[in-house]
Amino acid sequence: MPTLRIALAQVNPTVGDVSGNAAIVRQRSRAAADAGAQLVAFPEMMLTGYPVEDLVFRNSFVTASRAALDQLAADLVTDGLGDLPVLVGYLDSDGPASANAEASPTHGPRNALAVLHGGRVAARYFKHHLPNYGVFDEDRYFVPGDVLPVVRIGGVDVALTICEDLWQAGGPFAVARRAEVGLVVNINGSPYELNKDDVRLPLVRRRAAEAGATIAYVNMVGGQDELVFDGDSMIVSPDGTLLSRAPQFVEHLLLHDLELPAASTRTPAGTEPAHPAPADGPDGMSVTRVHLSDPLPAPVGAPVTGGITEPVVDEGEVWQALVLGLRDYVDKNGFRSVVLGLSGGIDSAVVAAIAVDALGPQRVVGVSMPSQHSSEHSREDAAELAKRTGLDFRVEPIQPMVDSYLANLSLSGMSVENLQARVRGVLLMALSNQEGHLVLTTGNKSELAVGYSTLYGDSVGGFNPLKDVWKSLVWKLANWRNAEAVRSGGTPPIPENSIRKPPSAELSPGQLDSDTLPDYSVLDAILVGYVDGDQGRDDLVGAGHDPEVVDRVLRMVDVAEYKRRQSAPGPKISIKAFGRDRRLPITNRWRERR
Amino acid sequence: MPTLRIALAQVNPTVGDVSGNAAIVRQRSRAAADAGAQLVAFPEMMLTGYPVEDLVFRNSFVTASRAALDQLAADLVTDGLGDLPVLVGYLDSDGPASANAEASPTHGPRNALAVLHGGRVAARYFKHHLPNYGVFDEDRYFVPGDVLPVVRIGGVDVALTICEDLWQAGGPFAVARRAEVGLVVNINGSPYELNKDDVRLPLVRRRAAEAGATIAYVNMVGGQDELVFDGDSMIVSPDGTLLSRAPQFVEHLLLHDLELPAASTRTPAGTEPAHPAPADGPDGMSVTRVHLSDPLPAPVGAPVTGGITEPVVDEGEVWQALVLGLRDYVDKNGFRSVVLGLSGGIDSAVVAAIAVDALGPQRVVGVSMPSQHSSEHSREDAAELAKRTGLDFRVEPIQPMVDSYLANLSLSGMSVENLQARVRGVLLMALSNQEGHLVLTTGNKSELAVGYSTLYGDSVGGFNPLKDVWKSLVWKLANWRNAEAVRSGGTPPIPENSIRKPPSAELSPGQLDSDTLPDYSVLDAILVGYVDGDQGRDDLVGAGHDPEVVDRVLRMVDVAEYKRRQSAPGPKISIKAFGRDRRLPITNRWRERR
Repeated sequence: MPTLRIALAQVNPTVGDVSGNAAIVRQRSRAAADAGAQLVAFPEMMLTGYPVEDLVFRNSFVTASRAALDQLAADLVTDGLGDLPVLVGYLDSDGPASANAEASPTHGPRNALAVLHGGRVAARYFKHHLPNYGVFDEDRYFVPGDVLPVVRIGGVDVALTICEDLWQAGGPFAVARRAEVGLVVNINGSPYELNKDDVRLPLVRRRAAEAGATIAYVNMVGGQDELVFDGDSMIVSPDGTLLSRAPQFVEHLLLHDLELPAASTRTPAGTEPAHPAPADGPDGMSVTRVHLSDPLPAPVGAPVTGGITEPVVDEGEVWQALVLGLRDYVDKNGFRSVVLGLSGGIDSAVVAAIAVDALGPQRVVGVSMPSQHSSEHSREDAAELAKRTGLDFRVEPIQPMVDSYLANLSLSGMSVENLQARVRGVLLMALSNQEGHLVLTTGNKSELAVGYSTLYGDSVGGFNPLKDVWKSLVWKLANWRNAEAVRSGGTPPIPENSIRKPPSAELSPGQLDSDTLPDYSVLDAILVGYVDGDQGRDDLVGAGHDPEVVDRVLRMVDVAEYKRRQSAPGPKISIKAFGRDRRLPITNRWRERR
Repeated sequence: MPTLRIALAQVNPTVGDVSGNAAIVRQRSRAAADAGAQLVAFPEMMLTGYPVEDLVFRNSFVTASRAALDQLAADLVTDGLGDLPVLVGYLDSDGPASANAEASPTHGPRNALAVLHGGRVAARYFKHHLPNYGVFDEDRYFVPGDVLPVVRIGGVDVALTICEDLWQAGGPFAVARRAEVGLVVNINGSPYELNKDDVRLPLVRRRAAEAGATIAYVNMVGGQDELVFDGDSMIVSPDGTLLSRAPQFVEHLLLHDLELPAASTRTPAGTEPAHPAPADGPDGMSVTRVHLSDPLPAPVGAPVTGGITEPVVDEGEVWQALVLGLRDYVDKNGFRSVVLGLSGGIDSAVVAAIAVDALGPQRVVGVSMPSQHSSEHSREDAAELAKRTGLDFRVEPIQPMVDSYLANLSLSGMSVENLQARVRGVLLMALSNQEGHLVLTTGNKSELAVGYSTLYGDSVGGFNPLKDVWKSLVWKLANWRNAEAVRSGGTPPIPENSIRKPPSAELSPGQLDSDTLPDYSVLDAILVGYVDGDQGRDDLVGAGHDPEVVDRVLRMVDVAEYKRRQSAPGPKISIKAFGRDRRLPITNRWRERR
């Protein structure tokens, strides 16, 4: 059996930064070659970043991706890497893009994978299964491919697949079995979700069994707006054995020696032009065979193994996702620093700790904005957090501004509570305008769901690390992070008092969250079913929740939605006289202008 | 040839208000029967409203739609309407909904049409072509149907289709020709876009030719968040003659007598159970035939014709769309009133006029919030607008609040300009909290695109009638509305001075838009290509725009996007630890709680 040393490049591309992404491919290909790799694979849509959304419809962008691919093939030769097969994801197109009903079912934009070799594109694959659920909208953007390339590398037949191809039975992996391949490479842009790593391994095992071949799975890493790609690249043998697994949330070059079956003598070691097999495979796919190289000399020295990284606990996984997501949002968008309000409470303390882990304390500004209702311990807890983390700490009392509104308007009750939060929002925005910081918001998912926050007040900001984190998990994250600090001999960043004290908005005398909300453990359990899930009232009651509490919580969610309608559901509602707005990535380095 | 008097009910359902929507069907069916109609058709998803988005995944909602359909069939009998075939859109399901890769390709939620007759569902059709472009995401939500029901009504064979079925060649209309039907009914939830009425008629003509049959097209009317359904229901003969056309933007019961070919003796007037034809038609659809009634006595008296409404000019069409969209957002969400800032400029004047047309002057509060930079004429123009329209007018000077911030913070330049706009935002929100108004935003599409506005300042609000309206069109709308007033002997609502004077934000001394922006006619032409279209820099230059101006405008758009990233792209970015947020309609009457 030939031995192939493969390299999986778990790297962090940036959407729109085509030349920067190509540079990453050159650097990592060099490193792979220096380590003796005979094949290196990069993630899905490596050259463009992922997802590019409506940039697909911009011809200038598609053209740039295709040109960058050709340039990259040439540059790899210049780098002395012409003999190394480099597998790289990119955006291609073999027909006009269309955002309407006239779309062609057979030609258009493609989610593509190229094998670069000898200064040219030796093989291309167009993604077959296009996901159109959850965070994915690929039916809008891409036309599916129906040809599976089998590329002979070092005497081993290697099939090429992309991401979703792995998540559905049938299709490319079944065709790969018929084509008797020795290895299937699967390149990914697979976003993190809690416990998704527990789903991937069994899935890769099922496909390895379906294909009867080893699977090399490479995923990108990094933040892209609301998505975080977690890596978790791995290699699994046909019998389901996990041979190697990369760590999550960090860039990594996974190198591993694989003994793989020599290409069958029955299958033609075809030379170019590649000849497609008849379209009689499962799911109507045909096979194109491309010959790159006969068996290569075995790698010298002791066998190289990539090792197996063990999964971390849930809190550690979420913490790393939040840190990486914030860091990439800040850095990829070119912000130098962030600013947030520090109330002394648990939410802003956890956001500050995440920001310091992501950016370092010099790039984080924390502002204490006490009012007449702020307790002494709140001011102290905010100062204590600043001391422990070393962030840039300021104090800006809000009472003079609040009083100027109250002197000029007739306000009472909730309006006065909201006014205080809005004065804080105006203060943070003034600091952002004056000094250039990105404003961080700190509301957790539980309080946002039930409307326990002030629109244009504590909701002001461009990025909220906790927006998808339930309050119960916020506490767990705080405890986990502090324990990690103790374990590594450091200072726990979050003051114990911020974790232990009963939560309060401190917008009126003696106010506590528990005056208004059920206990967070009860609240969160109901919200998880209603907001994250698709459970109705009867499902929730059937699951054992108190019917009165269920109705109370559902009423709070409904009222919160009403209040958001009244002032801002986010992007302002308008009437579409000109069709749908373009959906473009927020973090996006693509620039048309010169 | 039998004569059939058909009724097309162009009505305004509300998303989630299943019982209210069923009540509309009963009322309009009564009216149709009283007028002698022998068939009445209601829009797509009539019982649930459209679009319902992720409510599709909530079993309680699907169950409610199906139950409401059965109840409606029974209620129509109670109403003495059991003999009238009532065609109504609703949400059905014949399998579990799924938001992931495991979705079944053949069973699941259905965009459905039922024929109610004799107290039961006599036939069901499941939409075949599912749109997944522009504002549509139906591939996420529905499974396509592949059976075309042909229902014999009064001796005429009638085929049932839904919306997108009309927009693609092949499919149901080709099958309808093979089935030799006399009439195709097409029920719609087709949103308004500028000039869309010019596209629909040729399209209906092409399908009439393809089916070789008369087409009866019925569309809903009304606002749903960013969509406005404009009606424009029509009837077209097989040779392409427009027989009748309803007005846009208003509810309407279109009644028309049609002479239609008697059902062929070759086609079986099948009795139930319906027997499907072999699946050998175009696009793999089969046909189910259902017999409801043999030829009926011809309608008595003179033939009834629905008349042909002529299209209106573009400005009139857009104005009506904006008025209807705002009115339905306000009324369907239960708001009593709206509040907006009146600067004396054109944008807020046009928004105020739209609001008064939509709601009447008693429900509109206009607030003049002068600062030290507000000119005398601006204050006067705002007061003049209030006088002409009769809205509730208030004056709240902002200088005391602005001064209290300036006394406590070190701010300069743009930060001070933004501060004034944000104090106005806080004032409007305080009034909203205190008095319950919906806050209207008044920024036009041109200034939003280039970032000529203040986040959390003039961008505060829950609904912006001008968000999708370019500045050039704002002026045209103002002139059109004033001319309409003159034409009908009323008072032009918008002061001529607000239309004529050079636009200014009045945030610093002597400031004019033209200090910062190119002439709006130049700016808008570039933005239309870049923001609405998919044109790149070279396309724009190729279209004749000055390269320097193109680069300057593109830079402004890029910087505006950067600023939005810094403080708020809308819904705050977060890291999806729990998968995609549910996409739910904003305007939605569905309530789970008791």
